[in-house]
Amino acid sequence: MRLTFLGTSAGVPTLERNVTALALALDEQREWYLVDCGEGTQHRLMRSRYTLSGLKTIFITHVHGDHMFGLPGLITTASMQGRKDPLTICAPAGVESFVRHALQCAAVTELPFTLTFRATDVESFEYRDNHFSVTSHELSHRVPSFAYRFAECCHPGALDQDRLNALGVPRGPLWGKLQSGQPVTLEDGRVIEPEQVRQPPPPARVAVIGGDNDQPGLLHTALQGAQLMVHEATFTEDVFCKVGPKYMHSTAKRVAEAAEQAQVDHVILTHFSGRYRRSPKPGEYGVEMLRQEAKHYFHGTVSLAEDWGCWQLGRDGRLERLKDH
Amino acid sequence: MRLTFLGTSAGVPTLERNVTALALALDEQREWYLVDCGEGTQHRLMRSRYTLSGLKTIFITHVHGDHMFGLPGLITTASMQGRKDPLTICAPAGVESFVRHALQCAAVTELPFTLTFRATDVESFEYRDNHFSVTSHELSHRVPSFAYRFAECCHPGALDQDRLNALGVPRGPLWGKLQSGQPVTLEDGRVIEPEQVRQPPPPARVAVIGGDNDQPGLLHTALQGAQLMVHEATFTEDVFCKVGPKYMHSTAKRVAEAAEQAQVDHVILTHFSGRYRRSPKPGEYGVEMLRQEAKHYFHGTVSLAEDWGCWQLGRDGRLERLKDH
Repeated sequence: MRLTFLGTSAGVPTLERNVTALALALDEQREWYLVDCGEGTQHRLMRSRYTLSGLKTIFITHVHGDHMFGLPGLITTASMQGRKDPLTICAPAGVESFVRHALQCAAVTELPFTLTFRATDVESFEYRDNHFSVTSHELSHRVPSFAYRFAECCHPGALDQDRLNALGVPRGPLWGKLQSGQPVTLEDGRVIEPEQVRQPPPPARVAVIGGDNDQPGLLHTALQGAQLMVHEATFTEDVFCKVGPKYMHSTAKRVAEAAEQAQVDHVILTHFSGRYRRSPKPGEYGVEMLRQEAKHYFHGTVSLAEDWGCWQLGRDGRLERLKDH
Repeated sequence: MRLTFLGTSAGVPTLERNVTALALALDEQREWYLVDCGEGTQHRLMRSRYTLSGLKTIFITHVHGDHMFGLPGLITTASMQGRKDPLTICAPAGVESFVRHALQCAAVTELPFTLTFRATDVESFEYRDNHFSVTSHELSHRVPSFAYRFAECCHPGALDQDRLNALGVPRGPLWGKLQSGQPVTLEDGRVIEPEQVRQPPPPARVAVIGGDNDQPGLLHTALQGAQLMVHEATFTEDVFCKVGPKYMHSTAKRVAEAAEQAQVDHVILTHFSGRYRRSPKPGEYGVEMLRQEAKHYFHGTVSLAEDWGCWQLGRDGRLERLKDH
C-alpha cells in the first residue's frame, strides 16, 4: 500500500507545503485513490507518479476549503483530457453541492464521464472495489469530519505445494483450476476443494486516514487491525496552549497517545501549522518538534509528511519511505 | 503601470504555466489589482512582490474555471490572514453565485472584511478609484467574456516655474498652495488660479486586458488611446486550422491585426495552449512561433507572457521587461 502526500499544510498553503491531499494506491496498481483535494492538488499531481486518468475514487474528509477547493479544477481538467471512466466522490454533505454548483457556474454543463457522489456521513457507509474496502468514522471538528479506514481486500492464499503433493494432485492443469478457485476431481474419484490446498491468505493491510479532528481517541475502534494511522498534528502542545482549543485541531502528543492505546505500528503526522518550518532559523518552530513530541508518547514509528513524500506499507507490516514519488 | 503575470496557460495548468491571473499596479503603489483568478493564483502570489493585504479590487473576465476557480481559496486565505479592508470583485453574472456558494458550503459564514460584487456585464460599467478608471468591453466567446480597459487617473501637471516667475508669484508658501490646487492672491491683489501655472498633465497610461475572445477586432474602440494590449493568443494559425473555431479562441495573427489596426504600441500575448513549449524539442511547438506570427502582422513590440513575467509601462510610453517580479 503506497501513500503519496500532495499537500501537508493546515488551512493555507505555504512556500513549503500545499493544503491537504493524499494519493493512495495498492502498491504498483495504476488505479489510485485521492483523500482530500485542497486547491492546487491537480498542480501537485503533475509532478507525481499519478495521472488523472488512473484516479478511481475520491474521498473527502470534510467541507473546509483547504480540503475540497481543488475539486472543480481537477474535475474540469479530467474532462478536458477526455476522461471516460466514471468517477465517484465519497464525501459528507456539502461537497456535492459545492462541486455541482461550481461546475454549473463555470458553464461545465456536461462531463464526458459519469460523476457520482456517495454520502459518507452515514453510519453504514462502506465503499468496496477489487482493491479496498473503505469505511468512514466520525471525528470531532468545527464541521462534520471523517476518517477513512482503507482495508486491503483479502485475496485467497497461494497454493500449498506440500499439501497438493500429499493429496496426490498431479502438477499441471489441475493446479491451475484449483488456483482459479474451482474444485477438481482426481483419477481415483476424490474431489479436492481449493480451500484444502491453499495457504492462509496474507494479512490485509489497513491504514486509517483522518480528517481534521481534536479527539484522536475517537479512532480507537477504527484503528483495530490497522498498521498505519495518518492524522493531522497541527500543533505541538505548547503552541496549542497558546492558540487555544477553538480551531479543534490535534497536537502531536494527542495523536501519539491514541496510536499507542490502539497499538498501531506506524503514525504519519500531517496538516502542520505554517509556523513549523522544515529548516527553522533560531527562534522559529521546526517540524521536528512535532516528531519529538509524538515519539515521547508512542513506541511505533513516527514520520512527518511532506509534499510529494511517499511511503510504502509492505505486506510484512513495515513502513518504508520511498525515494520516487 | 506594472503588470505581473501569475498564470499564462489556456484551460489547464502545465508544468511551465498556471491558469490565468494577472496582477496590475500603478508603478510602486502598494495597492494592486487582480485580473482573473484561476486555481492556484494564491500559490503564485506567494512568490511575487504582491501580498493579499495590498489587493484592492479583482476583475474577472468570464466564468470559465481557469479564470475564477482560485477565488474561494484566495478569499479564505485573506480571511485567515485577518484582512479588514473591503474587497470588491467586478465580474459578469455567475461569479458572485460561485463564490458565495463555495464559501457557504465550506462553512465560511462570516468574513472579517466586506466582500462586494459589481456586475461588469452592463454597458455603463465604470470602476474608479484614485489610481484607475476601468471600463468593461464585451468580447466574443462561448460564455459572456469581457476585456477591461485600465486608464490611469490623470493627476494635475507639475507647477511651471517659468510661468510662476513670469507672473511674479514669489517662491514659498504660495507655490505650495497652488500645487495643492488652491488659488492665491498676490500682494498687488491679483488672483492666480492653479490652472494658470501648471504644466499640461502627463499623458495617461492605458492598458486593455482581454478575456477569452475569438474576435480581437471588437476591441478597436477600447484600444483608442491605449499603449498596451494584453490578449489571449491560444493558437497559431496552423493549429487553429486543425483545432477548428469551436473553442472560440484567438490566434497570434488575429490579435496582431487588431493591434495594428488600432495602432497600439505594445502587445503582450498570453493564455497559450499547452502544446507551445518554452524550450521545444524537435517536432514540438514552441511559444516563439506565436511571437513570430504576431510580429508579421504588427509593427509594435510583441512580448510573450510567462508566469511571474513582469512588465513596466513607463510614462514615456515604453514597455520594459523587469527582472524582479
